[in-house]
Amino acid sequence: MSELRKDPVTRRWVIIATERARRPTDFAKPKTEEKILPEYVDNCPFCEGNESLTPSELMAYRHAGTQRDGKGWWIRVIPNKYSAVRPDTPLERRGIGMYDVATGYGAHEIIIESPYHNRTMANMSEKEIEEVLWAYRDRILEQAKNPDIKYAIIFKNYGPEAGASLEHPHSQLIALPVVPKRVLEEYEGARDYYAYKERCPYCDIIRQDKSDGERVIYENDLFIALAPFASPSPYEVDILPKQHSSTFEKIGKIEIMELAKIFKIIFWALSEVLNDPPYNFILHNIPFRGNGTEFFHWHFNLVPRITKLAGFELGSGFYINPVKPEDSAKALRDKINSM
Amino acid sequence: MSELRKDPVTRRWVIIATERARRPTDFAKPKTEEKILPEYVDNCPFCEGNESLTPSELMAYRHAGTQRDGKGWWIRVIPNKYSAVRPDTPLERRGIGMYDVATGYGAHEIIIESPYHNRTMANMSEKEIEEVLWAYRDRILEQAKNPDIKYAIIFKNYGPEAGASLEHPHSQLIALPVVPKRVLEEYEGARDYYAYKERCPYCDIIRQDKSDGERVIYENDLFIALAPFASPSPYEVDILPKQHSSTFEKIGKIEIMELAKIFKIIFWALSEVLNDPPYNFILHNIPFRGNGTEFFHWHFNLVPRITKLAGFELGSGFYINPVKPEDSAKALRDKINSM
Repeated sequence: MSELRKDPVTRRWVIIATERARRPTDFAKPKTEEKILPEYVDNCPFCEGNESLTPSELMAYRHAGTQRDGKGWWIRVIPNKYSAVRPDTPLERRGIGMYDVATGYGAHEIIIESPYHNRTMANMSEKEIEEVLWAYRDRILEQAKNPDIKYAIIFKNYGPEAGASLEHPHSQLIALPVVPKRVLEEYEGARDYYAYKERCPYCDIIRQDKSDGERVIYENDLFIALAPFASPSPYEVDILPKQHSSTFEKIGKIEIMELAKIFKIIFWALSEVLNDPPYNFILHNIPFRGNGTEFFHWHFNLVPRITKLAGFELGSGFYINPVKPEDSAKALRDKINSM
Repeated sequence: MSELRKDPVTRRWVIIATERARRPTDFAKPKTEEKILPEYVDNCPFCEGNESLTPSELMAYRHAGTQRDGKGWWIRVIPNKYSAVRPDTPLERRGIGMYDVATGYGAHEIIIESPYHNRTMANMSEKEIEEVLWAYRDRILEQAKNPDIKYAIIFKNYGPEAGASLEHPHSQLIALPVVPKRVLEEYEGARDYYAYKERCPYCDIIRQDKSDGERVIYENDLFIALAPFASPSPYEVDILPKQHSSTFEKIGKIEIMELAKIFKIIFWALSEVLNDPPYNFILHNIPFRGNGTEFFHWHFNLVPRITKLAGFELGSGFYINPVKPEDSAKALRDKINSM
C-alpha cells in the first residue's frame, strides 16, 4: 500500500508508491559496454596541460615551484566561462513597478577536482576527496568575505542526464546577493521546528533514524549517511555531521578526513548498486552572516538521477517516489557490508 | 547583462541570463520528418473502441443511447491503472516518532480528451477544448464533495520529454488529503501580499503587465496570457481570468468558451514558434474549503520543456533562464499577429 510522508523540515508531502515498487536493481543504469576513460584528453579544458583553454585560475593547490595557469596542480578553481552572474557587475537593486530586480552580480566558479580526466567520486582515493572538500571550504570562505554575497551554493552534476556538460571531474560554486528559495525554505522550516521543540530538527532526525535503524546507510565516528524519510526521489542520501554544526566552512582537518571516508564509501556503494548512475549533489549550508546556528545543520544531499523528473512534479510539489527509503538504505547497506 | 528577478508571489529569485541569450528559434525542437499520427491506433487503450483495455470509466460525455465503457463518447475519465493513491484505501494519519505519515488515500484519474489519437491542444477545435475544460471542472467538483480531500490538481504532460507515457491526448487529476507544498507556498505568498497591499497579487500582475505591455502575449474579453516576469524556464505562459476569481470550478459557460479560444491560440503559437514542443501545464487553483478567495487567483501555468532541467536547479531553487520573458512574449505575439 502506498503512503504519504511529510518531511519534518520542509513540510513537503511525498507519495511513496510502494505498489509500483520494483527491485533496486531495476533502477540501475543498463549495463552497456564499460566506457574506459583515459587519464588525459586532448581537447578537455580541465585536463592538466590544457590550462590555456580556460579563464585564468582563481585558486589552485599546486606543487612548489609551479606557475599559475601552468601544470603541477591537483585542485584548480576557475571562473565559469559561461557564467550567469559576474563579480565585476556592480550590485544594484531596484523596483520595476511591483517587481523587484537586481543586477546579475555574483560569482560562478568551477572547482576542477583532479588533473586526471578519469577520476570520479567513486574511484578517487580518500586523500583526493579530502582535497576537494578543502577546496569547497576555501571557496566558501572567500565568498563569505564579501558583504554583498548572501549565499554560496556548492554543487556537483555528474553525468549528462544530471546536467553535466563536461566529463572531467568538477564541482561548481554559485554565489549570489540573494538567498535562494529552497535554502530559505529549509532554513525557515528548521527555525519553526526549533521554536516549537527547542531542538535542532536534524539532530532529532539523526536520533530518530539511529533508533529506527532502517534508514541508516552507514556511519563513522563523525558522520552519518541516511536515506531521508520523505525522499522525493529514489536512492537519495543525506550525509550529516553527527555533532550539531550549522556552518560547513568551519570544518576542521579531522572532520574533513572522516567526511572524505564516508563520501568514498557512499559513492562507491551507489556506483555498485545503480551501475555508475548520474547524480546531483548539493551542500546545504547556513546563509552567510545569518542567525540560526542553533537550528540549522549543514549536510550534503545526494540525488541519483535514475527516474525521469516530470516537470509537473517539480512545478507542483507532488512527488511520487517508487522506492521506499528503507529499501534503498538496505540495498546500499548490504553492498557496504559485503565489501 | 544578466539580471536577478523575484517572483512577487512565491518570492523565488531567478537568474535571467541574457548574456547567454540565443534567438527564440534556437529553442525550437529540431525539424525532423513530420510524424503523422493516425486517428486510431490498435493497441492504444485510450482510442475509441479499445475501452476494454482500461479500468471502467468514472464519467464520460457520451452520445445518447451509447453504453458505459463502449464507443460513442467524446470525453472519457478513468482511474489511472498505475495509480499512486487510491480512493478505496481508508485515510489514516499517524506519527512514526518525529515523522508524519498518512495512508495513500486519494484519487488519480485520466481525462481522455478525445476519442481520436491524433488530437493535440494545438490542433483541436475550440469546441473540443471546451469539452476538456468542462471535464476538468466536473472532476474537480466531484473531488470537492469529499471532505477528506484537500486539493485536486489538474495537469497535462505532453510529449515523452515532459513525462507523457502515452501519445493519445489526455490530462490527469490527482486528489490528495494534503495540500502540496508548492500550492501552499503560492497560497501563502498571495496571502502575505494581500495582507500588505490589500490587493490580489495576480490582479496587480495583470495591471502591471498590461501597463508595461512587453510581457502580454494575448488577451481576449475575459482572459489574458502573460510571460511571467520571473519565469524559471524559457517560454513559460500563464493564462489568467482578467476578473478576479479564486476558484476554477465556478467557471461558467461564456468563460469556458473564451478560455478555450485563448488556449487554442496560445498552443497553436507555441507549436509554431517552438516546433511542437513537449510541455507540462498545471492548473493553479485554491485549495478546497479554504479561505483566501480574496487573494488567490486561479490560473494555468504552461511550461514548455525545451531546456534540460538540472536537478541541481530544482533542488536548490537557483533557476537560470536563458530567455528574457519579454523576448519570448514578443516571439509568440508576433506569431499570433501574423495569423
